[in-house]
Amino acid sequence: MDLCKIKDPSILKDMNMNQLEDFAEETRQFLIENLATTGGHLGANLGVVELTLALHKVYKSPEDRFLWDVGHQSYIHKILTGRGGKFDTLRQYQGLCGFPKRDESEHDIWETGHSSTSLSAAMGMAIARDLKKEDHSILPIIGDGALTGGMALEALNHIGHEKKNVTVILNDNEMSIAKNVGALHGALGRMRSAGKYNRAKDDLEWLLKKIPAVGGKIAQAAERLKDSMKYFVVPGMFFEELGFTYYGPVDGHDFNDLIENLNYAKKTDGPVIVHVMTKKGKGYHPAETDVKDKWHGVGPYKIESGEKIKPADAPPAWSSVISDALRVEARQDDRIVAVTPAMILGSKLEKFGEEFPDRLYDVGIAEQHATTLSAGLATQGMKPFLAIYSTFLQRGYDQVIHDVARQKLNVTFGIDRAGLVGADGETHQGVFDVAFLRSVPNMIISMPKDENEAQHLVHTATQYDDGPFAIRYPRGNAKGVESDQKLQTIPIGSWDVLKEGSDAVVLTFGTTIDMALEASERMEKEGRSVRVVNARFIKPLDDSMLHDIMKEGLPILTVEEAVLQGGFGSSVLEFAEENSYTSQWVKRMGIPDRFIEHGSVPKLWEEIGLTAENMVHYLKEMTPTKRQRA
Amino acid sequence: MDLCKIKDPSILKDMNMNQLEDFAEETRQFLIENLATTGGHLGANLGVVELTLALHKVYKSPEDRFLWDVGHQSYIHKILTGRGGKFDTLRQYQGLCGFPKRDESEHDIWETGHSSTSLSAAMGMAIARDLKKEDHSILPIIGDGALTGGMALEALNHIGHEKKNVTVILNDNEMSIAKNVGALHGALGRMRSAGKYNRAKDDLEWLLKKIPAVGGKIAQAAERLKDSMKYFVVPGMFFEELGFTYYGPVDGHDFNDLIENLNYAKKTDGPVIVHVMTKKGKGYHPAETDVKDKWHGVGPYKIESGEKIKPADAPPAWSSVISDALRVEARQDDRIVAVTPAMILGSKLEKFGEEFPDRLYDVGIAEQHATTLSAGLATQGMKPFLAIYSTFLQRGYDQVIHDVARQKLNVTFGIDRAGLVGADGETHQGVFDVAFLRSVPNMIISMPKDENEAQHLVHTATQYDDGPFAIRYPRGNAKGVESDQKLQTIPIGSWDVLKEGSDAVVLTFGTTIDMALEASERMEKEGRSVRVVNARFIKPLDDSMLHDIMKEGLPILTVEEAVLQGGFGSSVLEFAEENSYTSQWVKRMGIPDRFIEHGSVPKLWEEIGLTAENMVHYLKEMTPTKRQRA
Repeated sequence: MDLCKIKDPSILKDMNMNQLEDFAEETRQFLIENLATTGGHLGANLGVVELTLALHKVYKSPEDRFLWDVGHQSYIHKILTGRGGKFDTLRQYQGLCGFPKRDESEHDIWETGHSSTSLSAAMGMAIARDLKKEDHSILPIIGDGALTGGMALEALNHIGHEKKNVTVILNDNEMSIAKNVGALHGALGRMRSAGKYNRAKDDLEWLLKKIPAVGGKIAQAAERLKDSMKYFVVPGMFFEELGFTYYGPVDGHDFNDLIENLNYAKKTDGPVIVHVMTKKGKGYHPAETDVKDKWHGVGPYKIESGEKIKPADAPPAWSSVISDALRVEARQDDRIVAVTPAMILGSKLEKFGEEFPDRLYDVGIAEQHATTLSAGLATQGMKPFLAIYSTFLQRGYDQVIHDVARQKLNVTFGIDRAGLVGADGETHQGVFDVAFLRSVPNMIISMPKDENEAQHLVHTATQYDDGPFAIRYPRGNAKGVESDQKLQTIPIGSWDVLKEGSDAVVLTFGTTIDMALEASERMEKEGRSVRVVNARFIKPLDDSMLHDIMKEGLPILTVEEAVLQGGFGSSVLEFAEENSYTSQWVKRMGIPDRFIEHGSVPKLWEEIGLTAENMVHYLKEMTPTKRQRA
Repeated sequence: MDLCKIKDPSILKDMNMNQLEDFAEETRQFLIENLATTGGHLGANLGVVELTLALHKVYKSPEDRFLWDVGHQSYIHKILTGRGGKFDTLRQYQGLCGFPKRDESEHDIWETGHSSTSLSAAMGMAIARDLKKEDHSILPIIGDGALTGGMALEALNHIGHEKKNVTVILNDNEMSIAKNVGALHGALGRMRSAGKYNRAKDDLEWLLKKIPAVGGKIAQAAERLKDSMKYFVVPGMFFEELGFTYYGPVDGHDFNDLIENLNYAKKTDGPVIVHVMTKKGKGYHPAETDVKDKWHGVGPYKIESGEKIKPADAPPAWSSVISDALRVEARQDDRIVAVTPAMILGSKLEKFGEEFPDRLYDVGIAEQHATTLSAGLATQGMKPFLAIYSTFLQRGYDQVIHDVARQKLNVTFGIDRAGLVGADGETHQGVFDVAFLRSVPNMIISMPKDENEAQHLVHTATQYDDGPFAIRYPRGNAKGVESDQKLQTIPIGSWDVLKEGSDAVVLTFGTTIDMALEASERMEKEGRSVRVVNARFIKPLDDSMLHDIMKEGLPILTVEEAVLQGGFGSSVLEFAEENSYTSQWVKRMGIPDRFIEHGSVPKLWEEIGLTAENMVHYLKEMTPTKRQRA
């Protein structure tokens, strides 16, 4: 079958089991071939081929609502709903989004990217359905990792209480991004090995029959026992206890088992949980046998061997740079403990864990808990380092304010994937952290220009003992510069002049520094001299340098790969206002007030005008030639 | 005993049961008498008198760590740790804080205010203790309401997994602020009525004895059954399933029961949960018999009758104004559904619930879920109104960005307690929302000047269909103005000139409008004419009015009861920058870059300089008299 020509899921309706199995096989090949070129979330999608087909066969989208939690496992859903032909553009600029997207299809009714949102949204949809007296199914499809995110547990608790008709599909692959964490996973494990419980049930029934009939007392006791029995014979008692009817465990690669249980679920009133066991990477040997993350998210690869196609000799990833620097510190300072919300691999903390196995805590997908656990560590004189992606720190925002900053605790935030992230798009761009952290009292916010400055900043944060310290760093690879042997403590709030200049000043940090240097070179050719400053501290500002610049009256261009509303540039405006530099010329460049979709970072820079070209444009405006001035 | 003279909890060590009971009685009287004057969280503290005494008797603070979740129930702990003499200053400016405060006492090792943080902090402390090879107990004391907050569940899951020695004291009063919500509460209810389970255990044992000994097969089956038994004989099996040893239910007003179980807990390795049943308001008739909230938080009252002492004829509370306006809308528009995270009373939604019982959802203490549930409702064409305190919206920040604003869904945020809240202090000041919402694309942010404008804004939000719409309103009472009969739709982004003036302009909104009008009056006496503008839309700005002001070159003073970093004033600076008004004079007043403690709002205004006096000071500077100008 040509998967690019599928219009909608109705093609599944008349398929028999054999046809479904052939179709599943074709779908796997399609994914393996397409993603070899584009990259993408291969492992997760290979795991849900049969599940997705079974869902679309038993239910009817878009009347029935599928909510793909996290959403990177929605590729098969996209193929079935008319988007197979766009897979060559997957995760590329203006191409197919790697997550559900409402304006791509009426079958995408809920957009995701961050985890654990689907149950809450499903509950909202269920309330709406019942108020409107409509009749359809609502099916959040959520992984075992995402289920332990706090908001998913909040929703589970609420759905169970309200007894709404919501059918939760628990996609249990015993591995979300890495090995899962949490006592609930222990409980799931016990459900998986359900044999034991069923045996217990058999045992009890057999025993009850052996009891001699000695009258009413036995009968009463047996009756009461039967009443209590469900508490130990039902494998999903954890969910039953929360008010759900439990079906499972279901073999997620067996169409018979899947379809049978989904049909049961469809007929059941009230909240239902269908516990489906799947294998991440299923059907592609290199993914199945990968012990690290079963090919969670991959770039291009060779189909036959599974060999990843990577640019040769790239500098180390920023995440590695930071975690290597942290290991150096941890050798000297046993107060350092690393904390990560399910991102040991993404944050490159494996080596840290090998070297300091009792000083690395993966808390699972639980950013709120990760933040406040770090605060708890700090109250006891420890030096927690919380490695967390910028976009996920949004979920720990109250904890940053209320638990960390308000108590002025020494938590170092390693804010990974800061700035535009590219292919993951809107949901993952790390562009808000500067604005949302800057308004929090007691915060230090910094960003290194290269790996050498990164190690000094990690060292500086370790030495700092007056509250929280954030170091942000981008996705991708560092600069490839040499690092000093001796670590330095960088004075808090100090900036660094990278290039002298006397006609105007560019204040910038991180990824946009190279652009600024290029713009300055180009201005030089036009006969104008532009200073470039590495504003490596975003908060506090380098007051003394700013006073000098403003007293001199030099025009300032601020450039940041972060939102303009309330961002770094605004803090420079605020500085001018606070210090009554009422005619200081400040121009700001950064990310405009809208969500930025997926695409390569250079493409996105171009789209939003964050380019050397535009810097030159503004700088020219701000530095009239001598003739213009006259 | 003079409770004001207690130095530390060692006084409890030699007390026998009778002495403890007398002491408990004295403590209750002390609380009832003191709070009659100061107000405070009476109900919660009356409920934990015996529990607090028992904890301090069995454990040794500060070596053993008590973490008071939410923290408003820590009054008895404060009395026992040398602070009884300060109760006449409770919740007053520079007086005793109503929550645990690290700089008040070495016994306050974790500051709270927001709920559900204690388990995460306890886990951080446990990791630190074990790394430092120390030996002491860590005891988060958490209510049944707070336990269902997502971050508490994340922490429960992690503590159970890591098997750390943490002793969770579950203070179960079946009522946190109002009636609790959630399936977990059902599970707790089943634990409370533990008789049934214990009976089942008895039944099974009795039955097993009745079975004739017919050899090895029976023995094996009985053995397997015993192995499975804990899954139905233990009342706390929900917690056992998560890796905790469960003790309970314990009578929280019986010293024998409390002390016995705490001693068990102390000797138990690994995570423990002690399930304590308490009665909110215990020992004070008016509180015990109050069906609404058992005197959760109260102002001054008459001790004998329990009659609340309130200023006569106060205008309605802001929360009432908004929920009344919402009821009017809901009668016309059946898309409106109100959502609240455990704040039906605080947000004055009782009448809404009476009139529209199937259109009000209290989701419990679960701000993340509340936000995304609202988003889910909006995807189905509903018009959810999420009533949420400013400070608690911090916990739904990621959901505001990722689920609501990014999908441009029509959720109305009723942001209650916006601005300074007074007696609750640092943890509850609603001062960050302007800054953290303003950087989110697609957000409308507004604030009414009085109840008449409030009803028009609620109407406007209901009509608006292009994304999220926030209406913020302060704690306390509205203005007492007359309301129009006919509802208006206020043009989005339009400001309102309240007083004309030609020398300078004050841009302000909400609570600071009166101050601005007063400052303008005073300036008039000095011969200078100051315009006062009600900037009722904080985002978007009134572009056209701003262009006019800036073209005219009038100096602008912005005033906001919100943080200055990235706030409304900064958006005016940004506007000037974006539109190249390079010599526009803007001066900003607002909340400085530090946490603001408890005290009456006028006291706090004075402390931070947010006064008419200071406005006059700046306005004079900005409007030189004709003589000075010359």
